[in-house]
Amino acid sequence: MEIKVMANILDKNDQIANHVHHRLSGQGIFVLNLMGSPGSGKTSLLEQTIAALKEEIHIAVIEGDLFTSKDAERIEGHGVPVIQINTGGGCHLDADMVQSVLDRLDLDKLDLIVIENVGNLVCPAEFNIGEDVKVTVLSITEGEDKPLKYPLIFKQASAVVLNKTDLLPYTSFNMQAAVEDITSLNPHVTLLPVSCRTGEGLTVWYDWLKEQVAAKKQLKAVNAACK
Amino acid sequence: MEIKVMANILDKNDQIANHVHHRLSGQGIFVLNLMGSPGSGKTSLLEQTIAALKEEIHIAVIEGDLFTSKDAERIEGHGVPVIQINTGGGCHLDADMVQSVLDRLDLDKLDLIVIENVGNLVCPAEFNIGEDVKVTVLSITEGEDKPLKYPLIFKQASAVVLNKTDLLPYTSFNMQAAVEDITSLNPHVTLLPVSCRTGEGLTVWYDWLKEQVAAKKQLKAVNAACK
Repeated sequence: MEIKVMANILDKNDQIANHVHHRLSGQGIFVLNLMGSPGSGKTSLLEQTIAALKEEIHIAVIEGDLFTSKDAERIEGHGVPVIQINTGGGCHLDADMVQSVLDRLDLDKLDLIVIENVGNLVCPAEFNIGEDVKVTVLSITEGEDKPLKYPLIFKQASAVVLNKTDLLPYTSFNMQAAVEDITSLNPHVTLLPVSCRTGEGLTVWYDWLKEQVAAKKQLKAVNAACK
Repeated sequence: MEIKVMANILDKNDQIANHVHHRLSGQGIFVLNLMGSPGSGKTSLLEQTIAALKEEIHIAVIEGDLFTSKDAERIEGHGVPVIQINTGGGCHLDADMVQSVLDRLDLDKLDLIVIENVGNLVCPAEFNIGEDVKVTVLSITEGEDKPLKYPLIFKQASAVVLNKTDLLPYTSFNMQAAVEDITSLNPHVTLLPVSCRTGEGLTVWYDWLKEQVAAKKQLKAVNAACK
């Protein structure tokens, strides 16, 4: 019986996720669901990305947290629209939470919405929230064994950001094993080693993201021309 | 309706947790529920602890993971009984999972059972599994903002292990803020800064753990004398 209730929740969630995706796609907005463990560096990656790209891409951020607005305050300092969703203890964002805040964004002016999910390698992977792609951040300080231990979130990711590479000399992280395990789960994934602290590797991440945003804009233009 | 189902699951879980706790307390076994983010160092802490204490304390380990038996294999190498529970994607251990494996342990010969929960700062905090105490491991690489962002798991902990202190010089972790936030949530918590890599601080952790185990044995002896 418990399983049945879970299935119903997921069905309803997927319906709402489709609505959210359809609405934002209609505006040509690329939507990224950013996932990862607590402290993997999701907010740091976002801060760097906004600072680097905000002049060429119009970005808004939706921050998911159990409590507090600490992450939203960090993003707000960079001068882009940000909305905080507090789940009140809930372990993931769902599509309804995202849908409920969309009217608070000026969608006509946006190219990209990044939704930073609750820090958790398990539950967020089970809920679509209307995104175009999921991106998973893994800090190298978490260890190379995490992809096989938490496979779903690595299987679903279009890109995996391997963060905190500046700490590689001080840890026993085996990058080769991590890369092999992630690609065995997900052969088409884009792997992006970066250090948000030193900036190493971030240009490749920015280029990947800009390509995705540009492709979405192009798709909107093609659709408009066909009508 | 969804909330009601959740409440029922929790009630049933607490009943089973009470059974587990009663059974193990009757044997004088101290039970520790070890929680923390993926990669915070729970298994490393356990490996060090077993290596240091297995001659004086009879330890068994129950390993909780979504998939794989990687952690159980690490523990097995240290020559103590270990049981792997795979949740099959589930984000936490529950009391029924623990109860179902107890018969596979020789309880007459044990002083301490450590149950390593699924790596997750959210969901494990909501489920008692028959433990005497919960211990939360926070890696300093996760950042000092985590206690206020994930308060429940820090409120419930009898001790918080602040791991990977060897990386403090290479990060911007603010130890004073972390300590203030954790103690504001949980004034009676024991804070244990350690490095499982260098061994720094581990002796204080061992002493804390030995005290808990000894107190449990003493309680059993007092109860036996009163009968």
